[in-house]
Amino acid sequence: ALAAPALAQSQPTINWRLASSFPKSLDTIYGAAETFSKRVSALTGGKFNIRVFAGGEIVPALQVLDAVQNGTVEIGHSASYYYFGKDPTFAFDAAVPFGLNSRQQTAWFDQGGGRELLREFFRGYGIMNFQGGNTGTQMGGWFRKEIKTVKDLDGLKMRISAFAGKVMQPLGLVPQQIAGGDIYPALEKGTIDAAEWIGPYDDEKLGFNKVAPFYYTPGWWEPSLQVSFYVSIKEWEKLPKEYQAAIEAASYESHVVMQAEYDAKNPAALARLLKQGVKLRTFPREVMDACYKSANTFMDEESAKNAKFKKIYDSWKRFRQDENQWFSVAEVPMQNYMLSRK
Amino acid sequence: ALAAPALAQSQPTINWRLASSFPKSLDTIYGAAETFSKRVSALTGGKFNIRVFAGGEIVPALQVLDAVQNGTVEIGHSASYYYFGKDPTFAFDAAVPFGLNSRQQTAWFDQGGGRELLREFFRGYGIMNFQGGNTGTQMGGWFRKEIKTVKDLDGLKMRISAFAGKVMQPLGLVPQQIAGGDIYPALEKGTIDAAEWIGPYDDEKLGFNKVAPFYYTPGWWEPSLQVSFYVSIKEWEKLPKEYQAAIEAASYESHVVMQAEYDAKNPAALARLLKQGVKLRTFPREVMDACYKSANTFMDEESAKNAKFKKIYDSWKRFRQDENQWFSVAEVPMQNYMLSRK
Repeated sequence: ALAAPALAQSQPTINWRLASSFPKSLDTIYGAAETFSKRVSALTGGKFNIRVFAGGEIVPALQVLDAVQNGTVEIGHSASYYYFGKDPTFAFDAAVPFGLNSRQQTAWFDQGGGRELLREFFRGYGIMNFQGGNTGTQMGGWFRKEIKTVKDLDGLKMRISAFAGKVMQPLGLVPQQIAGGDIYPALEKGTIDAAEWIGPYDDEKLGFNKVAPFYYTPGWWEPSLQVSFYVSIKEWEKLPKEYQAAIEAASYESHVVMQAEYDAKNPAALARLLKQGVKLRTFPREVMDACYKSANTFMDEESAKNAKFKKIYDSWKRFRQDENQWFSVAEVPMQNYMLSRK
Repeated sequence: ALAAPALAQSQPTINWRLASSFPKSLDTIYGAAETFSKRVSALTGGKFNIRVFAGGEIVPALQVLDAVQNGTVEIGHSASYYYFGKDPTFAFDAAVPFGLNSRQQTAWFDQGGGRELLREFFRGYGIMNFQGGNTGTQMGGWFRKEIKTVKDLDGLKMRISAFAGKVMQPLGLVPQQIAGGDIYPALEKGTIDAAEWIGPYDDEKLGFNKVAPFYYTPGWWEPSLQVSFYVSIKEWEKLPKEYQAAIEAASYESHVVMQAEYDAKNPAALARLLKQGVKLRTFPREVMDACYKSANTFMDEESAKNAKFKKIYDSWKRFRQDENQWFSVAEVPMQNYMLSRK
């Protein structure tokens, strides 16, 4: 009798569809899903295929969470604060006003208990969340007129993300929800007075500087914005262990690459904008302080009525305080010295 | 006739040995190699095994580069500035005085041309380098006496890394090369006046605070320290594509996890040290300025005589300037605001 050849365990071919919340024009943030998908394919000899669809192609951009939850797609790539209206707790997976910077958010998620807390929360939506990129500190947006005091926010119509809108409403700001492509004409006509988007590299493409010359910093509502992969738990459980490992590893890779791309692309974009006459402005301390106070009031009130929010907020808040103590000792003095020599 | 069953292409079992430059007691930095090895194994169904050996177990801690180059091991995990004596160019893969912070170093390596430039340089040693962790900004070390002016560096015997020693020698500092375990008795006896190591979490274990109470910041010679995996190019070329992909992805993962671990562990260690009476001090501006000037002199002189150094320095220097311009606009104002509220 012939000896049977040693057979390798054959791995299955698996095809998934990934719904992104982002348009292809946001190449850096949309690209993180492509980075992810390419790595998963390379790790599995092309057997585990994840096809990436841009926002709106198969699922509306802001319904990616729902699409994974209800099984329309196996995986999504989104920014969790888009689902703030369902539950403000989602924001801890993305961006919180006066929250963690990019490195601190990654540390909290990966080694500070954040992953476990957030996954417990996401389990209620049938989803397992993974880190899938960060933008770093965003800009505060484009304004037709200067903001000199808190009173200048009163009656200001601004296209702004939901959480920031909530925080500024008590100060008189009128938040507007407008899709990316509609912001420019609204700013031009004066239907709105201001709009925030992301940072120099992405903002430049939309040309806001032509209709709103004052470019404010910092975007305190997004000291960093983490984006996330949403994997259907039901589909996850069907995967061979090696494919699960591929998702985990590829998530780390796209997390690094997206931040690095923003860091590499933003400086030149900012320089081009400044050459075109953009007027860079810093929010006055008085405005920052009023927003900080309002943000804390919101967090405290939400904690009092939302146990899920409170559980995560308590961990996150302690972590933020510890991190800032440590960053104040080595990281920030070093960075400030370098800026004094630039 | 029976149809033959579809056979999966059988992947080979491969066993590698990884020589680390780090002792197991540095669990965070040593642990990055364990994170890497576990992920590679999980991605390959246990077929690609990388066994991690601590510094000195099979290869002396500071000869990991040589061990990969001469084929003693297939892979290493080290800090490239340990090979500063062979060529100062190695420092760009690790830490350069007044250099890039952790995020900027990652951006330069991954998206700013750093990987390509460094790999061209490492090819001369038969090695392909991968990112394998970062410590963040390190502390400036432990001093028996306060440093109030540049004159206080004159005659000071300090255990310090090679590049920083070179920069401070013109200011009269006497650099000492002492292994980690021998620093404490040398400081206690007064054989040396000062010693730098890493940061609160690692420094605390060695108990320096008992014999040198002044803890200085920032460690300007290591605004961030990237550690690296060294893969033998000869061995790399023998790997199936999926195993190469596993190394690439696992490198990203350990890069994230090591920084996150330091960020999560340093705050509590610093708090414990401060409770024990450690006296935190910031290097005087005059001292920082003198060191900055000396560092630039060294870089310029080295560039004039070392074409490999110059090629990388020119790219790196432009990148540093661009990054700091951009960080000064959003990242740093945001961080400084948060520190003012901590």
